[in-house]
Amino acid sequence: MELHQLIQPADTKIVLVVMDGLGGYADAEHGTELEEAETPNLDRLAAEGISGVVEPVGPGITPGSGPGHLGLFGYDPERFELGRGALSAAGLDFTLQAGDVAARGNFCTLAPDGTIVDRRAGRIPDPEAAAVVEKLQAGVRLDGAEVFFRHEREHRLLVVLRGEGLEPDVADTDPQNTGVPPSEAVAHDPGSKRTAELVAELNAQVRALLAGEPKANFVLLRGFDTHRELPSFADRYGLRAAAVAIYPMYRGIARLLGMEVLGRPADLDEQLQIMGDAWGEYDYFFLHHKYTDSAGEDGDRPRKIAMIERLDTAIPAVRALGPDVIVVTGDHATPSQLAAHSWHPVPALLWSERCGRDDVDRFGERWARHGGIGMRPTKDLMPIMLANAGRLQKYGA
Amino acid sequence: MELHQLIQPADTKIVLVVMDGLGGYADAEHGTELEEAETPNLDRLAAEGISGVVEPVGPGITPGSGPGHLGLFGYDPERFELGRGALSAAGLDFTLQAGDVAARGNFCTLAPDGTIVDRRAGRIPDPEAAAVVEKLQAGVRLDGAEVFFRHEREHRLLVVLRGEGLEPDVADTDPQNTGVPPSEAVAHDPGSKRTAELVAELNAQVRALLAGEPKANFVLLRGFDTHRELPSFADRYGLRAAAVAIYPMYRGIARLLGMEVLGRPADLDEQLQIMGDAWGEYDYFFLHHKYTDSAGEDGDRPRKIAMIERLDTAIPAVRALGPDVIVVTGDHATPSQLAAHSWHPVPALLWSERCGRDDVDRFGERWARHGGIGMRPTKDLMPIMLANAGRLQKYGA
Repeated sequence: MELHQLIQPADTKIVLVVMDGLGGYADAEHGTELEEAETPNLDRLAAEGISGVVEPVGPGITPGSGPGHLGLFGYDPERFELGRGALSAAGLDFTLQAGDVAARGNFCTLAPDGTIVDRRAGRIPDPEAAAVVEKLQAGVRLDGAEVFFRHEREHRLLVVLRGEGLEPDVADTDPQNTGVPPSEAVAHDPGSKRTAELVAELNAQVRALLAGEPKANFVLLRGFDTHRELPSFADRYGLRAAAVAIYPMYRGIARLLGMEVLGRPADLDEQLQIMGDAWGEYDYFFLHHKYTDSAGEDGDRPRKIAMIERLDTAIPAVRALGPDVIVVTGDHATPSQLAAHSWHPVPALLWSERCGRDDVDRFGERWARHGGIGMRPTKDLMPIMLANAGRLQKYGA
Repeated sequence: MELHQLIQPADTKIVLVVMDGLGGYADAEHGTELEEAETPNLDRLAAEGISGVVEPVGPGITPGSGPGHLGLFGYDPERFELGRGALSAAGLDFTLQAGDVAARGNFCTLAPDGTIVDRRAGRIPDPEAAAVVEKLQAGVRLDGAEVFFRHEREHRLLVVLRGEGLEPDVADTDPQNTGVPPSEAVAHDPGSKRTAELVAELNAQVRALLAGEPKANFVLLRGFDTHRELPSFADRYGLRAAAVAIYPMYRGIARLLGMEVLGRPADLDEQLQIMGDAWGEYDYFFLHHKYTDSAGEDGDRPRKIAMIERLDTAIPAVRALGPDVIVVTGDHATPSQLAAHSWHPVPALLWSERCGRDDVDRFGERWARHGGIGMRPTKDLMPIMLANAGRLQKYGA
C-alpha cells in the first residue's frame, strides 16, 4: 500500500510549525529547554490535542537538517538522501544541472600557521561576506570547469563546480574542529577523483586570494552533492503546499519538494503576516523557526528557552487563521548542553478537532512521552496529519 | 544508510550488563521479580538515566539465547540466525567446519517405559556428566560420518556430525516436556534426510550404551545448525569488545562476533576482577549474569529475586571503573511462573552523562514502561549506546 493511493481531496488546512532543533534533554540540574520555557499557548494546544516524541531518522541517529526535515514532510530520510550542497543550491534558487557538484561553504579564519581559529569567521556580517564572495567569483579560475560562488547568509556560501566527469563523493574539507588545518579534498571513489583535484586547486586559489584578510581568509567545504530529483509534495499528498521560512536551506528543501516558497520574511511577525496573506491559496503551510536551533548550537540555554517562548507567542495568530490541523515539533534535538544536533527524541504535538485528547496538558518531553502520539519515527506524523485533515480514504474493504 | 557508515572513533567506554532471562510478569499476587527485588544501585542508575522495555525479536516471540543476545549486540535476530548447536560449538572453542552439523544435547532421564522423567537429568554434576560424555565418544560409531561429543556444563553437551551431504534442517528431538518420549529425528527438507537418519542411528546407540544408568540415560538434541559467518563487532561498530561470561554459550556467541573472551571466571566477583584488570584495553564490555535465568527456568521466584539482588551489589564496582555508558537489561524474559523463556518485554536502563533523565527512579517493568527509552526492539539499544558514547556521526547535511 502506498499512501498516495489513499489520498482524497478535502477543504482543510494543515499547519506544520517547526522549531528547529527543539528537542533537548534533562539532566541533574534542569529539565529540557522546552520543559522550562513558559509556553501557555503551546500548553493549551497540548491540552486540547495529543502529544508524543518522535525520532527523525532512527534510534541513536543524529540528523542533519536535511534528513530531519524530510522526515517531517513524510519522506523516509533513509531512502531519500539530500546533501548539504544540493540543499544550499535549492535555497538560493540556484538551479543545479545534471552533473554539477555543489557544496556548502563556510568562511573560516585561519591562523598564520594554517590551523583553523574560527570555523565561522566570527559569523561575518552579510555585506562583508558578500564582498568576499564577489572577490572569489572574480578571481578563481579552474582548468576545464566552471565554478560558481553564491553568498547565503553570514559566513555561509554555496560553491558549485560544473564540468565533465564530476562526481560528488568527496570528503568534507571542514574538519569540524578548530586548532587543526582544513582537511584535504579526498575522493571516496575513483569517479570522484577529478572533483577532488578541482577542489584542491580551488582551495589553493581561495587561500591565495584571501591571504590578506584578517578573518574570513579561507572556505571550508562540506556536503558535496549533485542534483537530486525528489517526488513532489503535490504528487504524494495532493496538497498545495507553501513554506514560510527565513533561512535559505529550509526554503531550499521546501522548493525541492515543489512547495511554493512565500515572500522574503525577516522575522516571525513577517512570517505570520505572509502566511495570513496567502491563507486562502494553500492547503498546507510549513512555518520554520530557526532560532531555537541557533541558540542550542551556541550552547545558550536561556536564549533557546527565550526563542521557544517567542514562538509560543505566535500560536494565537496561527490559530486565528482557522487551520484544521496544527502540528508543532522540531526537525531534531539540539540540546544546549551539547551545543550540537543530537539523537534525542523530539517532542511533538498535534491539534485538530478530531485528534482526541490525552492526559498531557503541557508541551515538553517529560509530558509528551506519555501522550497519545506515543514514540514514533518522525515520518509517521505526515499520515496522521493527513488523516486528521480528512485527506486519507479508508484502506481496504 | 548503514550504521557502520556513521561510526566515528571516541575515547569512551560502554558496559552492557546482561541479566539472563531478566524479564518477568506481574500477576494477582506479585510484581515481577525485578520489581520486588531490592536493588538500590540499579534504582540509582535508573533515576540518573533512562528506562524502557525492549522486545528481543518481535511481539509475542519467545527468543532463544542466541537471538536474544544478537539483539543486544545490535544484530537483527531475524536476519542473523544462530542455531544452538553453532553457539555451543563456539562456546567450547570447537571449530565447526563447513558442512558440519552441530546440536546442543541435554542429558535427560528416561523412565523404563521410555518417557522423559527429567529433561536435565537432575542437573547432573560436571564430573559425572564428563564421564558419560567420554563413554559416548568411545562407544558411538556411525556409518559414513564422524561424531563428536563434548561436555559443556552440568547436563549440557555438544554433538557434532561430520560427513558428506549433511544439512541441518532437522527437528529437535527434545519435546520440551516430561511424561512423553523423546521426539523422532525428522528432516524438515529433503536435503536434511541423511542427517535425520544419522541422528536416529545415534539415538539408538546412545540409548543402548546408557541403558544401565539410573539417570542421564539418554541425550535430547536441539538447535541443529551449521557453521555461520557473522559480521564482526569490530567491523560494524569500531569497538574493541570484550566478554566477561561464565557459561560457554555466551562466551561462544561473543567469540562468534569477534569479541575477546576474557579469563575463566567462576563467579561474579571474578568477572568484576577480570573486567577491572582489562579496563584499559577495551571500549566495550559485555558482562553476562546467568543465574537469573537458571532460577527463572527452575520456577524459583525467590532465587531469581536473590540473583537480581546479587547483580545489584556489583553495580558500584562497575560504576567505579568510570564507564561512559552503562546499559542493564536481559536477553529475554524468563518468568518464574512459566519456568521457561517467554515473549514478555524486558526492562532496560541506560545511563550516561548525556542520555537525559525521565521520571523513572526505580528499575522494573512497571516503571520502565514510562521511561525515556520507550518500548523498542532490543536491537535499537546498540545505536543508542553508541550515540551516548559519542561514537556516531551526524547523518546527512
